[in-house]
Amino acid sequence: MLQPGWEAIIDLALAEDIGTGDVTTLATVPASTRARGVLLAKAEGVVSGLDVARAVFQRVDTAITFEAFAADGEAVVAGVELGQVVGSARSLLTAERTALNLLQRLSGVATATARHLAAVAGTNARIIDTRKTTPGLRALEKAAVRHGGGANHRFSLADGVLIKDNHLAAIGTPDRVTRAVRQARALAPHTLRIEVEVTTLAELDEALTAGADIVLLDNMDIEQMRKAVRRTANRALLEASGGVTLDRLRAIAETGVDLISVGALTHSAPALDISFDLALDSSRGRTED
Amino acid sequence: MLQPGWEAIIDLALAEDIGTGDVTTLATVPASTRARGVLLAKAEGVVSGLDVARAVFQRVDTAITFEAFAADGEAVVAGVELGQVVGSARSLLTAERTALNLLQRLSGVATATARHLAAVAGTNARIIDTRKTTPGLRALEKAAVRHGGGANHRFSLADGVLIKDNHLAAIGTPDRVTRAVRQARALAPHTLRIEVEVTTLAELDEALTAGADIVLLDNMDIEQMRKAVRRTANRALLEASGGVTLDRLRAIAETGVDLISVGALTHSAPALDISFDLALDSSRGRTED
Amino acid sequence: MLQPGWEAIIDLALAEDIGTGDVTTLATVPASTRARGVLLAKAEGVVSGLDVARAVFQRVDTAITFEAFAADGEAVVAGVELGQVVGSARSLLTAERTALNLLQRLSGVATATARHLAAVAGTNARIIDTRKTTPGLRALEKAAVRHGGGANHRFSLADGVLIKDNHLAAIGTPDRVTRAVRQARALAPHTLRIEVEVTTLAELDEALTAGADIVLLDNMDIEQMRKAVRRTANRALLEASGGVTLDRLRAIAETGVDLISVGALTHSAPALDISFDLALDSSRGRTED
Amino acid sequence: MLQPGWEAIIDLALAEDIGTGDVTTLATVPASTRARGVLLAKAEGVVSGLDVARAVFQRVDTAITFEAFAADGEAVVAGVELGQVVGSARSLLTAERTALNLLQRLSGVATATARHLAAVAGTNARIIDTRKTTPGLRALEKAAVRHGGGANHRFSLADGVLIKDNHLAAIGTPDRVTRAVRQARALAPHTLRIEVEVTTLAELDEALTAGADIVLLDNMDIEQMRKAVRRTANRALLEASGGVTLDRLRAIAETGVDLISVGALTHSAPALDISFDLALDSSRGRTED
Amino acid sequence: MLQPGWEAIIDLALAEDIGTGDVTTLATVPASTRARGVLLAKAEGVVSGLDVARAVFQRVDTAITFEAFAADGEAVVAGVELGQVVGSARSLLTAERTALNLLQRLSGVATATARHLAAVAGTNARIIDTRKTTPGLRALEKAAVRHGGGANHRFSLADGVLIKDNHLAAIGTPDRVTRAVRQARALAPHTLRIEVEVTTLAELDEALTAGADIVLLDNMDIEQMRKAVRRTANRALLEASGGVTLDRLRAIAETGVDLISVGALTHSAPALDISFDLALDSSRGRTED
Amino acid sequence: MLQPGWEAIIDLALAEDIGTGDVTTLATVPASTRARGVLLAKAEGVVSGLDVARAVFQRVDTAITFEAFAADGEAVVAGVELGQVVGSARSLLTAERTALNLLQRLSGVATATARHLAAVAGTNARIIDTRKTTPGLRALEKAAVRHGGGANHRFSLADGVLIKDNHLAAIGTPDRVTRAVRQARALAPHTLRIEVEVTTLAELDEALTAGADIVLLDNMDIEQMRKAVRRTANRALLEASGGVTLDRLRAIAETGVDLISVGALTHSAPALDISFDLALDSSRGRTED
Repeated sequence: MLQPGWEAIIDLALAEDIGTGDVTTLATVPASTRARGVLLAKAEGVVSGLDVARAVFQRVDTAITFEAFAADGEAVVAGVELGQVVGSARSLLTAERTALNLLQRLSGVATATARHLAAVAGTNARIIDTRKTTPGLRALEKAAVRHGGGANHRFSLADGVLIKDNHLAAIGTPDRVTRAVRQARALAPHTLRIEVEVTTLAELDEALTAGADIVLLDNMDIEQMRKAVRRTANRALLEASGGVTLDRLRAIAETGVDLISVGALTHSAPALDISFDLALDSSRGRTED
Repeated sequence: MLQPGWEAIIDLALAEDIGTGDVTTLATVPASTRARGVLLAKAEGVVSGLDVARAVFQRVDTAITFEAFAADGEAVVAGVELGQVVGSARSLLTAERTALNLLQRLSGVATATARHLAAVAGTNARIIDTRKTTPGLRALEKAAVRHGGGANHRFSLADGVLIKDNHLAAIGTPDRVTRAVRQARALAPHTLRIEVEVTTLAELDEALTAGADIVLLDNMDIEQMRKAVRRTANRALLEASGGVTLDRLRAIAETGVDLISVGALTHSAPALDISFDLALDSSRGRTED
Repeated sequence: MLQPGWEAIIDLALAEDIGTGDVTTLATVPASTRARGVLLAKAEGVVSGLDVARAVFQRVDTAITFEAFAADGEAVVAGVELGQVVGSARSLLTAERTALNLLQRLSGVATATARHLAAVAGTNARIIDTRKTTPGLRALEKAAVRHGGGANHRFSLADGVLIKDNHLAAIGTPDRVTRAVRQARALAPHTLRIEVEVTTLAELDEALTAGADIVLLDNMDIEQMRKAVRRTANRALLEASGGVTLDRLRAIAETGVDLISVGALTHSAPALDISFDLALDSSRGRTED
Repeated sequence: MLQPGWEAIIDLALAEDIGTGDVTTLATVPASTRARGVLLAKAEGVVSGLDVARAVFQRVDTAITFEAFAADGEAVVAGVELGQVVGSARSLLTAERTALNLLQRLSGVATATARHLAAVAGTNARIIDTRKTTPGLRALEKAAVRHGGGANHRFSLADGVLIKDNHLAAIGTPDRVTRAVRQARALAPHTLRIEVEVTTLAELDEALTAGADIVLLDNMDIEQMRKAVRRTANRALLEASGGVTLDRLRAIAETGVDLISVGALTHSAPALDISFDLALDSSRGRTED
Repeated sequence: MLQPGWEAIIDLALAEDIGTGDVTTLATVPASTRARGVLLAKAEGVVSGLDVARAVFQRVDTAITFEAFAADGEAVVAGVELGQVVGSARSLLTAERTALNLLQRLSGVATATARHLAAVAGTNARIIDTRKTTPGLRALEKAAVRHGGGANHRFSLADGVLIKDNHLAAIGTPDRVTRAVRQARALAPHTLRIEVEVTTLAELDEALTAGADIVLLDNMDIEQMRKAVRRTANRALLEASGGVTLDRLRAIAETGVDLISVGALTHSAPALDISFDLALDSSRGRTED
Repeated sequence: MLQPGWEAIIDLALAEDIGTGDVTTLATVPASTRARGVLLAKAEGVVSGLDVARAVFQRVDTAITFEAFAADGEAVVAGVELGQVVGSARSLLTAERTALNLLQRLSGVATATARHLAAVAGTNARIIDTRKTTPGLRALEKAAVRHGGGANHRFSLADGVLIKDNHLAAIGTPDRVTRAVRQARALAPHTLRIEVEVTTLAELDEALTAGADIVLLDNMDIEQMRKAVRRTANRALLEASGGVTLDRLRAIAETGVDLISVGALTHSAPALDISFDLALDSSRGRTED
């Protein structure tokens, strides 16, 4: 099935990595050599990107077969084989790095998300991502967050209304929160909820009175958030954002906020270590030219 | 000047972030509002991506002016203003996240590189990157490594010969190192040096005898690397690779290897924290439609 | 400012219309001839697409100047000059048809929308569009609806949850409405409201109980809609859809529904008649090559 | 077979409709559900676009099977099933609207064309389209005109010479018709006929003397056209254009003109009403990922 | 003005030549160096491609100024300066090869065409090109043929009807010429003339009887062509094609055929030798980044 | 397997040749006709481009089968069948010219290369290409050179360091050769050798002292080249370039230079004459729509 956001980044990634051609492979490996490559986890984590890796290999060579031994979203430990690819050795060698770069990065995002989820286990808070994703990888990283157990904030500026501090600064009037919420309600499609960012409890009150559906509490301390939850009394969803670190996460969740958004899930997650090990394939198979 | 690899990723990043349009901004900020936004470092590090950020803002609106207060490659501390943009408030708000996502990530890469450079100060080792870059951002991240003081390994499979373990596995014969080096010499353009990966000192000897220009020492311990340097006696460049962590880096450099390649510079560098703060702009200026 | 959805369709439209070049113009009109062209309304209606027309002319030749005499969203009568373009006669002749095709179609959509708006004047119903837009013109036609006074339903499958009859059929269980609303609530970003399509009052009840934010009343008669409004009692927004014709519109609005969606605004609006009349331009001006 | 003009518009249409993904379907319909969808005519007309609809469904999911029960160009009445698609329910739901938008619009064009054809039955006049097509859909709408029984005027500015009033205005001299026809003959490829637009019988005479192959009679009344036919005496083809409405069509045809061009076939044809009804598919089948 | 067919090939050519960046120039020439480069003819010929070369330089760097000293279509001798470019030395060095590759090839085509024109001087025959152009350069090479004094055959399969031997073979019936001409007349747009290829005088007769507008005489000898001209008696245009070499050209033209098509103008013309010589530029000027 | 540089140029070539559709074929050949076409060498030469031709036919119609009777790199004489294609007659006729244009041009390059190779048989000189390739066809022509027995110089500005006269002019200092070689060594990736162009023996000495890996001898006469070889004494590779004609080639090779680069291999090779002959196919087969 067509996957929005896959084709463009896979083509771009392969183009920048292959350039005018893989000179090493063409010079050293005969066209007729067939091989089998294994994707092997070298560290503990949650897998994401196996379907993307498959798409990379098959974009390079439609005759490559890809068999997944794990599923996106699955927790694995070091030593687990995630899947294998079989086909022309040249094709495997040419596709390997791009496939791994995607798989390792996305698994890194899923793994980081899972760690955050674990920290809030038993609370009602939902861990959500932000728009601080890697340029070009938005759709893939949002899926990786889901694979790690998290939920998604809006995908783009078009599918969610979030009135931020900079919008309020650009309005500039004292009643800017009220004005912004009302204008958004009047002009945005009726399918969208209205979310607004506040930094004080007074602004929270203004947002609630103006009819905001969701309020983002920016960089509040634990005590402020607790008060915000009480004061809101379920009239709106509350999203905690800013300064969210793993060690502070549980305390935030226990304030009763509905959502905690974490930019680091996507902008600073280290890659998960995964290797690709090739061996000659003795089985017979067709080689596409 | 045309920057290879910029246009495609900037267009892709803006497309995925803006989607069908920035509903919040269109609903809440009048078309005539003009604003000034400041890029502010919130942590210590090395800047990279200011020119890219400028390109993002001007792709969104050619009438935006961008003034850099720092230069790519410059070390900054928290609180330093990196630059300012002035123009239509709507345009600034729509471009902000994509510009920041790039600037923060690239500055993260430059910052990580600078830390590695500091660790080997005074030795002859050159810190180089790998092809473990973010898909779509190869050219930008390679530049960020240079901004951080590092040097670049090959950009793509087309501009360097590097015979790796998987190539050797695909050849499979006992003389695979010799055979691969000779074939590469015969078939690759004469402008390229021949590099081969080895895991033992015996393989290193074979590589040197076969005439390799560069030998990659894969996952060797310090003692093995020291021996490799002695045995090679400047007949080839030596690149240390695999298992390179920041705390082991100086010891590796002191073995006398010429190059140390570090995948983490690009695949696991946390983003540098940079904010974008908007204020109304009272100065007069033209607004492009 | 970057307009999402403009560049691709303008390039596609110009490419299909110009092909390998405008042979007639190249053969008959000297390169040095300068001309002035006037866009003239030939019928009464609401204008939409002047900015798009400008973009078309300037994509063909950046040296063309375009001056609008009317604004998108303005009501005009036959004989009103909407704007003028001045520049190389060759450029004007080559761009003319593509600019007009867009301007006439979009003005047709705005005009049809304004007629629907007039029919519900004084009621609380909002006239909204659908996804039944011209392929490739989604963003432009959604803007034309706004120019005509209407509001937009969601832009794409990504920025609104609308559970339709075919989704319910694909679920298939007796509790399909409840199940679908709950799953959507659990899995969709929190920024989106949940809308579900129903065909009976019983289904409406089920949707309300399940917590739907918006209910689409599909092809209900006036009496059913009136009952739906009463029964809903503001617990959700109600959207009337299906079989909405201009002569039935007021009666529908008077039932008290909040939204009336009309596919014909975009799939069947006749083009507004607008001509482009050229005359030699005696004023001096630069001609871009 | 490669269909010029299909890939770009289908990709653009799917991209704008799917955006970052079909949230409703992903949230409510399991990946394993298979369904069957039927395309059903809800009004009388001529079908066009079934092959395009097939291409849309298979672009979304190559595993979808599409069976047409009617052929492009076939006349149908309300209630006729035009075809069925079978496959993953998610894929069908995601592709449905784009496929329908194209099929309904193209069938609308074919239906409008057939009505015009019926009006001139028994005369020698050929009903032809214009370049007043929907931006991006030129090739598809030109095919729809043929499906409705009409013929095509030129596809683009490159494949026909048509000297229009605006060209003549840009030449400006008293002998502009003669000059334009001769220049076009001298400079255009020899494979193209020369057509020129005239508004008076005097200009017609000039065009014939200059050697025009085809003369477009712009906005002439019936009597003038009759005279034009007599005066031309088969020295050139005559095309009636401008102010062509369905009720005036037969009278125009009976003047003896060879061609009647009708912009409304493509710029103002209402869509043909066609529905897509889904049901669970109990048969076994492979689901592509 | 937008030039159909320029942007895509210029972008493709620059992309394949620059790859990930011009390492030599970046390493050896400072960013601040400004230079002046001169395009110098090293052989006698006709120039074509100066406007294209300008577009290449300015695609690389919008701040480059390009001054042409000759015009496309002008005959030059060795030693003539064709133009100069001034700007950032880096930009000039990076753009140089792509600009020259286009300029030399197109000037080669124009030069070859001019030689063919000279050979038929004083006859009525028109020298025309074919579709045997360089893939991707169709529009540019067709313009180069005009610059050399030749005329263009159709640009693509869409803007001319030419029934060739392989079409006739695919029809297969004894009356294939008649049938093909009539079908083309009935189905092709009325703006196109009908041309058919024949190999014998009997087929020529059949083509004329069927009403062909143009007949292509394939590989006929001089005597046959002379007979064909007599027999046709201006009922159709005659195009000589196949086995047309420069030394046979005048004899062919003197048979009285109207058109002589020569594939070698585009598929085998040697490049015209043109050099690009750089010098430091002492004048002050702005350098775009 | 994905072939870098194929998709873009094949798509561009087909788009420019097919335009809005092959009117001749659509009008004269029924959709159901199947045919067989044979690619036939009409002159002696070396074949290159059969795989590309296959890709062209299958891009037009995936149901076409292509059987090669020769291999790229094979020497053939006039009359040899190179391959056959079977499928829909319409598809074959539409794809024919683009496939032939590529096959003939690439075989022309391979043939020219083979002639140059023959001239240096028995010497140690390697015949190499340049960047003077056809815009858009770099990768294909570089492969054709290999098919003809030659070797490749760098593919792009990114995969080789070659300091040319214009770089030296842009540096401008007396020690420009030394400076350029050292800067390149310091800043270019370690995988690249450093090549520098010289015009005198004094410059050669400077280059060798500076540590150049390869020296390009520009336009030297035979005697100078002989001296250069002696003086270099294998401290660097020597490349002869400029003024290399086929009749001078052997003498150049016998000076002992390592490499001789020849721009004419790609910028001035005449196309190899190859025809495509169609016949009706009586065998049964599926026709893709």
